[in-house]
Amino acid sequence: MPEARTFVERPVSDAINAAIVELDLVFRSRLTVGAAICQQHSNTLTWLASEPPDAVVWPATTAEVSAAVQIAARHGVPVIPFGAGTSLEGHVNAPFGGISLDMSRMDAIVSLNARDFDCTVEAGVSRKRLNAYLRDTGLFFSVDPGAEDASLGGMAATRASGTNAMRYGTMRDNVKSLTAVLADGRVIRTGGRAPKSAAGYDLTRLLIGSEGTLGIITELTVKLHPKPEAQITAVAPFATIEGACETAIEAIQSGLALARVELLDEVQIRAVNAHSGLKLAEAPTLFIELHTSRQAGREQIADVEALARAHGAKGFDWADSEDDRRRLWQARHNAYWAIKTLYAGQSILATDVCVPISKLAACVSETAADARRSGLIAPILGHVGDGNFHATPVFDASDATQVAALEGFLERLVARALSMDGTCTGEHGIGQGKIAALAAELGPAVDVMRAIKRALDPEGILNPGKIF
Amino acid sequence: MPEARTFVERPVSDAINAAIVELDLVFRSRLTVGAAICQQHSNTLTWLASEPPDAVVWPATTAEVSAAVQIAARHGVPVIPFGAGTSLEGHVNAPFGGISLDMSRMDAIVSLNARDFDCTVEAGVSRKRLNAYLRDTGLFFSVDPGAEDASLGGMAATRASGTNAMRYGTMRDNVKSLTAVLADGRVIRTGGRAPKSAAGYDLTRLLIGSEGTLGIITELTVKLHPKPEAQITAVAPFATIEGACETAIEAIQSGLALARVELLDEVQIRAVNAHSGLKLAEAPTLFIELHTSRQAGREQIADVEALARAHGAKGFDWADSEDDRRRLWQARHNAYWAIKTLYAGQSILATDVCVPISKLAACVSETAADARRSGLIAPILGHVGDGNFHATPVFDASDATQVAALEGFLERLVARALSMDGTCTGEHGIGQGKIAALAAELGPAVDVMRAIKRALDPEGILNPGKIF
Repeated sequence: MPEARTFVERPVSDAINAAIVELDLVFRSRLTVGAAICQQHSNTLTWLASEPPDAVVWPATTAEVSAAVQIAARHGVPVIPFGAGTSLEGHVNAPFGGISLDMSRMDAIVSLNARDFDCTVEAGVSRKRLNAYLRDTGLFFSVDPGAEDASLGGMAATRASGTNAMRYGTMRDNVKSLTAVLADGRVIRTGGRAPKSAAGYDLTRLLIGSEGTLGIITELTVKLHPKPEAQITAVAPFATIEGACETAIEAIQSGLALARVELLDEVQIRAVNAHSGLKLAEAPTLFIELHTSRQAGREQIADVEALARAHGAKGFDWADSEDDRRRLWQARHNAYWAIKTLYAGQSILATDVCVPISKLAACVSETAADARRSGLIAPILGHVGDGNFHATPVFDASDATQVAALEGFLERLVARALSMDGTCTGEHGIGQGKIAALAAELGPAVDVMRAIKRALDPEGILNPGKIF
Repeated sequence: MPEARTFVERPVSDAINAAIVELDLVFRSRLTVGAAICQQHSNTLTWLASEPPDAVVWPATTAEVSAAVQIAARHGVPVIPFGAGTSLEGHVNAPFGGISLDMSRMDAIVSLNARDFDCTVEAGVSRKRLNAYLRDTGLFFSVDPGAEDASLGGMAATRASGTNAMRYGTMRDNVKSLTAVLADGRVIRTGGRAPKSAAGYDLTRLLIGSEGTLGIITELTVKLHPKPEAQITAVAPFATIEGACETAIEAIQSGLALARVELLDEVQIRAVNAHSGLKLAEAPTLFIELHTSRQAGREQIADVEALARAHGAKGFDWADSEDDRRRLWQARHNAYWAIKTLYAGQSILATDVCVPISKLAACVSETAADARRSGLIAPILGHVGDGNFHATPVFDASDATQVAALEGFLERLVARALSMDGTCTGEHGIGQGKIAALAAELGPAVDVMRAIKRALDPEGILNPGKIF
């Protein structure tokens, strides 16, 4: 395991220099080779070693992305698309050097079709900006990864997800079609705006989650959802993780209008209490949100409470006003930053796995026990509604014993999820960090992915060193 | 346009004969070269010419599918997977001869995980059989293509859809992962049972809709949904198609719990009346179904009625009991067979396109007008909720003038859908019938599909002559 945030030095090749000279003629002030900016465009939010590109370019159009890729292709130089840099598995690192394509200037909202519940945007538009734009339409864009903000292109490239995926789906489900630049500079559009299509291979879904290794997403038509008439939030501490998970499973099975079901374990609640001066019971706690009509909401929250009480809830607090809901969600919203600030100076690693929900209680409990045995502080936070949970171990990267303990913990976490018919990552992706885990999970299917990669990017210039 | 149901004769090659000899050693009584059975395994439900395979094999396991594909690969012989033969664009035809793999013996329900809302089945299990199996679990499998019954493997291969896709999604959304045999006989599993995953390329979605051209699906883990507490059906005739479509759009926008919104135009209603002795108003008619709680259902149906009346509904009949709902749905259920029997002896072609819902009224109206101008009877039936509609022209295949009129009508229908940012097919797929339409729709993206096809099936033995 590389030490966190190390700067990796690497000589710049002639090919890369030649490509930079050509790119400079096109991009002028929108190209830099400055070390600080290159450094910022490598791995920014993760524990993996930082491997900066040799230059950063800011294209403004799909045609400019194509031009940049053609220049890079001519010289066999890597191209690494960069959204907001909030991915967690080293996706924007440049292990072989090359050109970072910063998509932030491609931030136009191309067209809104409110009656069709879709909006076409350039890849650099962030989810917060899109939702601000939609504020008065009665519609919203649903996918909300934990990152402070993220670009829609990057979210598509990593198949991002978030707290309300159980209701509204992940990026897989929320993109109608997209425009992408291929490894030779060709531009394709994968579809139109129809709600569904049976026209040929699903290139939209192939590009979503391909982490910039098959094409560079420059434009997307995303789905929007009507804002729910009512949102109701409930918080309930439980005697056991099992009780919390059982409540979630039965609530889902009852067809209740659940939009979010989040689980914080007692280690996570302890961190939140210490950080925010809250006095929550230090117990596994469910945060639940219903999206429905006002009338149905009142009915359904009573059903949720009955289920929770039957499974050992030690309390049940709910609210439907904006202010009260915000108060209830506070602990959940602060979860990551509570760990970050409480353990300032130490390294934090955010990892994720996803299992069938029937296995979630066992997987979370065993993982928490493993952390204790390994002498690690590892708060757990789960999107219970879709079986996805995060462990966020805190460690001292300079302490070889702790690093070894962490490595073992991570390996066992993936093995545990796979043994339960789960996946090594529910939403963070493979990047550089989970290449071995992917092979362990899918075996021969990874050879199929490699064959597709070779067919579409034979020179391997698109975000090399990721996934494989 | 080939004459409907023509038998195409083709000499059997040495390679095919050699493959059949080898297959016979493995499959014995589960192999036939009988002309009648081969004929049954070609294009059974469509207007395209029938092109039978040279032999039919009934594998019983994934290993046997792999063995059959390996033999075929060794001899360079086409392999055509066969589910229930209900596809509509010639997907099971054998234009280059070869071996039909009839999956009907792979009909085991491998495992049900009710708590995880999933079920793993072999590819030959039909949707009706699966739902019969699930009867007492409180769960159901949602995808319901118009075909009388269909196999789940075939439904995945064609990215099938149906009346309630607007609520529960298509096959794209309802498969967690699958097992497939590749062109060289390798077996891959594309994932586990986790509700979501960000682990590498989405091979599940790549195989769904690939129409047997990239791999043969042998097993699937499908998603199940909790049965709704209440189902409410409403039927309303409208003064105009626009009024019907506007009602649907506003109902969706209001977040009502719509599961089905079906539109029958007046030509279709006339056919149903004549066939079933009903006396429905000969007007564009909406069939609506809500899936929700009993309480919310009563509230929401009132909202739907208010919307419908505001948009010119000339009546509004609704019911929530099983018997009354069945009565209301009768006209919709009989739609296809009404045309089939009313125009017995003539050819019928079921085609589909899909457009953004804001364009649906215009697309349906213009298509109906085009049919009238072209002298064609072409009832229209739409899944309004997702912008997908079917035209079912009736024609005399021996009348060159009618065939020419039909060809023009079909070409204009696809062009119309594409000009509205739609797709040439929402649910029927490409097969042999829409190869030119796919190229018109996606242009350079089709080259990407071809590159993937070449990478995974370099000899082109998997269902050749389809999609490309």
